Amino acid sequence: MYLMRVGAPGAEKPVVRVDDTFYVDVSDLVTDFDEFFFGSGGIASLAGPVAERIAAGETESFGDQRIGAPIARPHQILCIGLNYRDHAAETGQAVPDEPILFTKSPNTLIGPNDDIRIPRGSTKPDWEVELGIVIGSRTSYLDSPADARAAIAGYVLVNDVSERAFQMERGGQWSKGKSAETFNPAGPWLATPDEIPDVLDLGMTLDVNGVRRQTGNTKTMIFDPYFIVHYLSQFLVLEPGDLINTGTPPGVGMGFQPQVWLAAGDVVELSIDRLGTARQNVIGPR
Amino acid sequence: MYLMRVGAPGAEKPVVRVDDTFYVDVSDLVTDFDEFFFGSGGIASLAGPVAERIAAGETESFGDQRIGAPIARPHQILCIGLNYRDHAAETGQAVPDEPILFTKSPNTLIGPNDDIRIPRGSTKPDWEVELGIVIGSRTSYLDSPADARAAIAGYVLVNDVSERAFQMERGGQWSKGKSAETFNPAGPWLATPDEIPDVLDLGMTLDVNGVRRQTGNTKTMIFDPYFIVHYLSQFLVLEPGDLINTGTPPGVGMGFQPQVWLAAGDVVELSIDRLGTARQNVIGPR
Repeated sequence: MYLMRVGAPGAEKPVVRVDDTFYVDVSDLVTDFDEFFFGSGGIASLAGPVAERIAAGETESFGDQRIGAPIARPHQILCIGLNYRDHAAETGQAVPDEPILFTKSPNTLIGPNDDIRIPRGSTKPDWEVELGIVIGSRTSYLDSPADARAAIAGYVLVNDVSERAFQMERGGQWSKGKSAETFNPAGPWLATPDEIPDVLDLGMTLDVNGVRRQTGNTKTMIFDPYFIVHYLSQFLVLEPGDLINTGTPPGVGMGFQPQVWLAAGDVVELSIDRLGTARQNVIGPR
Repeated sequence: MYLMRVGAPGAEKPVVRVDDTFYVDVSDLVTDFDEFFFGSGGIASLAGPVAERIAAGETESFGDQRIGAPIARPHQILCIGLNYRDHAAETGQAVPDEPILFTKSPNTLIGPNDDIRIPRGSTKPDWEVELGIVIGSRTSYLDSPADARAAIAGYVLVNDVSERAFQMERGGQWSKGKSAETFNPAGPWLATPDEIPDVLDLGMTLDVNGVRRQTGNTKTMIFDPYFIVHYLSQFLVLEPGDLINTGTPPGVGMGFQPQVWLAAGDVVELSIDRLGTARQNVIGPR
């Protein structure tokens, strides 16, 4: 199943994607794809009604409606740093012995095709295509990575937008450079795990102004999604609907020589196999 | 005004404190002390009705009801590190040039007298008495620290419980040692700014098992609350009800020689002038 949210910012309605053209409106069945939905068996509850509506031809067209993030603002956005060997190398940092955790403010979440706004004072805005994990149930102290499978509601394409000067040169913790408004485009859809034959073999790309900047595959992750969820559950309690950005492959702007930063007017286009394509225009500060 | 929440975990009702014995129930007027409440002028809306109810003798007794955190689970919990000169010294770290930002998972929030649960695998659980700021309105790009006054809903006593091995020895970012369940006791009440004659002259103490461990005063903060709110608003958008822990004075367990850590059976008692007293029992892992 592919969950999406369509409509104006803050007023999105939950739908299930049928194909590139059509969806099934489920806004009469569930309030939103939020903590309550994921934590109360919401995905399972939709399967029957959605199949019936498709069979009855009760579908609608996306048309030119805005696509929102496929989940409501989560309780928390957790991020794993330096989780691809080649990306660690390009940033000049050692491959970590265990996952590096940092966070983004939850209100950074925006739709996949919304504008990325460069923050005031920014000198080094950068991109990061990433596989996002959405948590499906309250999760703590998992016994093994294998147990993490049942805790994952699905996967989503995200851009972990970063301001490298804020992240690295302003006081020691990364969150400061990860939390500006619009810094977490997500979507177009959440794919449930049954739609992904092998989450450890998903190609991923990111282009800026039509120039290919990132090319990667989840097979080169240092810590895979199951390990990450198991690992994080030893340190904190994951809530349903929480988003985990699992790190980026090589090709971020910081890694080029000379370095390349985003600027107003740029267009970022990113994709992950089976998770769709997103396209963001970069705009200047407020 | 002093906001409190009383009742079982997850089922607290919002009340306004009259004195140590009595409160005014406002659960018929507001749903909770949450993002919507703070962001919609909720505090101002309560002044009239609360005064009327006190005049009419419509108060109730706390009795032995549990006290919850005085705010609902926030959108985010932000923390400032090393914000007292003497505390930076005791941890062997330099006084920062600008505020160090890290985060805690919002679901760490518990009541002021709830148990602190030591996480599994913990070897260095520690305490931190702190002044907490609660944000009163959506806040971004404040022009000056003076403008932050209008963005602050009130102040609260918090214990920024920390696991130093998770924080310092497990991969480079502090959030990992700050986010275990029960790691953010808060309360007993939120005091609105008009109840605090000088937020930069509040004495603060923390005892463990009756032994005074922390003694401090907000006058020795490096970055004051107005500066902090102004500063953070340059990097991210603060939402109504967000909690900011502003750092701890000297006397954390990490700073003693030999170091002192919390253990199951310990009792932590902490207080800040005008923000009340909290008392937490420390219990072992689940």
